[in-house]
Amino acid sequence: VEAGDTAELTRLLEPMHAADVADLLEQISAEERRQLLAMWSGEIDGDILSEISDAIREEVIEALPPGVVAEAMRELDTDDVVDILEDLEEPAQEAILSTLDSADRLAVEQALAYPEYSAGRLMQREVVTAPEHWTVGEMIDHLRAAEWLPDQFYHVILVDPRMRPVSYVTLGRLLSSRRDVALKAIVEESFRTITATDPEADVAYLFNQYHLISCAVVDEHGRLVGVITIDDAMNVLDEEHQEDMLRLAGVDDESSVLDTAAETARRRLPWLMVNLVTASLSAVVISRFEATIEAIVVLAALMPIVASTGGIAGTQSLAVAVRALATRDLTASNARRVVWRELGAGLLNGLGLALVLGLAGTLLFGDWRLGVVLSSAMMVNQVVAALGGVLVPLSLNRMGLDPALASGTFVTTLTDVMGFFAFLGLATLVLL
Amino acid sequence: VEAGDTAELTRLLEPMHAADVADLLEQISAEERRQLLAMWSGEIDGDILSEISDAIREEVIEALPPGVVAEAMRELDTDDVVDILEDLEEPAQEAILSTLDSADRLAVEQALAYPEYSAGRLMQREVVTAPEHWTVGEMIDHLRAAEWLPDQFYHVILVDPRMRPVSYVTLGRLLSSRRDVALKAIVEESFRTITATDPEADVAYLFNQYHLISCAVVDEHGRLVGVITIDDAMNVLDEEHQEDMLRLAGVDDESSVLDTAAETARRRLPWLMVNLVTASLSAVVISRFEATIEAIVVLAALMPIVASTGGIAGTQSLAVAVRALATRDLTASNARRVVWRELGAGLLNGLGLALVLGLAGTLLFGDWRLGVVLSSAMMVNQVVAALGGVLVPLSLNRMGLDPALASGTFVTTLTDVMGFFAFLGLATLVLL
Repeated sequence: VEAGDTAELTRLLEPMHAADVADLLEQISAEERRQLLAMWSGEIDGDILSEISDAIREEVIEALPPGVVAEAMRELDTDDVVDILEDLEEPAQEAILSTLDSADRLAVEQALAYPEYSAGRLMQREVVTAPEHWTVGEMIDHLRAAEWLPDQFYHVILVDPRMRPVSYVTLGRLLSSRRDVALKAIVEESFRTITATDPEADVAYLFNQYHLISCAVVDEHGRLVGVITIDDAMNVLDEEHQEDMLRLAGVDDESSVLDTAAETARRRLPWLMVNLVTASLSAVVISRFEATIEAIVVLAALMPIVASTGGIAGTQSLAVAVRALATRDLTASNARRVVWRELGAGLLNGLGLALVLGLAGTLLFGDWRLGVVLSSAMMVNQVVAALGGVLVPLSLNRMGLDPALASGTFVTTLTDVMGFFAFLGLATLVLL
Repeated sequence: VEAGDTAELTRLLEPMHAADVADLLEQISAEERRQLLAMWSGEIDGDILSEISDAIREEVIEALPPGVVAEAMRELDTDDVVDILEDLEEPAQEAILSTLDSADRLAVEQALAYPEYSAGRLMQREVVTAPEHWTVGEMIDHLRAAEWLPDQFYHVILVDPRMRPVSYVTLGRLLSSRRDVALKAIVEESFRTITATDPEADVAYLFNQYHLISCAVVDEHGRLVGVITIDDAMNVLDEEHQEDMLRLAGVDDESSVLDTAAETARRRLPWLMVNLVTASLSAVVISRFEATIEAIVVLAALMPIVASTGGIAGTQSLAVAVRALATRDLTASNARRVVWRELGAGLLNGLGLALVLGLAGTLLFGDWRLGVVLSSAMMVNQVVAALGGVLVPLSLNRMGLDPALASGTFVTTLTDVMGFFAFLGLATLVLL
């Protein structure tokens, strides 16, 4: 297909959904992408740009003629324009802003004035509102007469004369009510507002917790400034998850399989370097016991078992805790109970593993004292792992930091150091 | 508050959203929960039951009088009833089913007949449809006359005479069009259907990819059987993420901070036992080099550095790959390119780490040959880690298994074994 046949390309891509075209652009190589864009640039519309992953969007925009980009941007709702612009460099932002209508430009600039990752960046400014005293009939006539309506809207927001949102009406209720019914009589209980400066994580939580479809956004004076719809909230939820998963693994949270090798390396190196330092801690601990290892060299072979099983247990406990903090299932009110439960679980699994490992050690090496050392060290390290896995994220959270941030490195360092220390320390006491 | 004052309790809980009452029930201790339910059972409604986490729902239902449960169930849409029933034991299911109206009962039983985690289990059967030839006016009159409409609906689905869905109309378009406009003239392009037996992961993907708000569900003959709304899809997306994160950490994917200590231990023990076995592999590898360690005992202290840094690199690569497989950013068409990129990133970071570690080793121990051993082993293990992190989940995926399932244990075993082997093997060759 890349043989230069533009007509054939158009025939293939034309019927595809923008999201699928974007995926296609992401999955071909950089070289193929350049060729495809050169041949097909006229057909790239705003929806495709808005679907393309941040990782390659800048590259795509640079490859397109400015006129095409400007045209594409004009089709989009302001929230999508903001989403595209916020990831671009200053000069590229300026260039695109200058091609927008002055009204759109103002709206986009106002949105960009809100802090990054705030509700203000997510919302669309196109809102369907009605005065509180209207009836269903007046509302329907108003909608029928409207020249322009947002692509997606699910509620009509009732506002007071000072533009403060009061409640909302679902379109379903509007459609199924008689014309003379007052809008006030069919409002929904679930109405909530969010402030434009609230963090987007709170937006995602609100939508997920209360099953919202759309939510009114207000400024500091309580006046309506926009609306956030569930598809944006779903996106944020998705990004928050990505962040948790990647941060927990010690990777920059914007990592993507679309990065180049050099970007990939750069996003991972920081935590690898940190780990180099923390791993040296284990080395220092072990080196304290060189005499013991010299005397009984099989200990060197056995010590990673205790450390590594502790690492797994710590990771398990950590994953559950980080997830529970994200969904707000783990809060100050049940933290103490959860920590006790982790302690109990650590003791139980510690017992089970200690039994197996102790027996195996005793039978394989014909020395019950080695069995005792193995099982006691395992026991200690399992408890440390279970507690560390929940206390590290809880502490980070209390300090106002992201509980997923690098907890993995902390916890495995803890279980490594503890595992080597407990095992070699006990071995020195019992076996020498 | 738990001092027995029911009126006070009602005053406090009454204005709360069902989701918040459910959270409260989750976060208090089991003892407090029993007391609260005993005092307040009359007020527990269907929404609260449907919001409560699976982990304690069975306990709550058992604590309530059967009459209250039956009453609560009758208020709910069928998809919510199915969601509650599918997690209960057979006899409890039967008991609740027998209290439902025969129509609801049939609907719920039909939904339960679909495989677990399929679209059929997610959908609600209450659908708003219209014959293709209707006008906006006819539709509005029909909706106004309807005795009962679903709580939430965002589209009217157009069906042919054999009940096969043809397209849909958003309520926004319906409201803003004149009465004489044909429904056919205002249908949406984005219309898609899903088959009831499709897995729910596909449903979440479809909603996320195409920004759907609702999606028609059809049976194997293409006839409309229900509709899935975005709040259910958001839920599935959330659960899929949870599954990925917990499975990657080697925990049962239904783990929750609400589990008891014994449940927690049970959900984690299997992978700990597996790890005990895989960690023994490392022990076997190390024991092959006992003579080397006996000769240069400081090697025992240094070997975990190479293994642990490899473990972190493997986890990083793995997290990015599992995430990309879940979002379908990593597919057969770019897998080869991603693997090459991982190789490149592994080489780059391997070089960086090798340089630092080699220098540190040479300076601290005054032996450049030890520096060379450390840095070469680091180099090898970083490349193995980067490749393992992407190849393990890709292979699991190709075999039709969940790429997150236990990849963590595989990859860290690989990097541990490789780290010890490369380091001790090179040490034996170079230093002895």
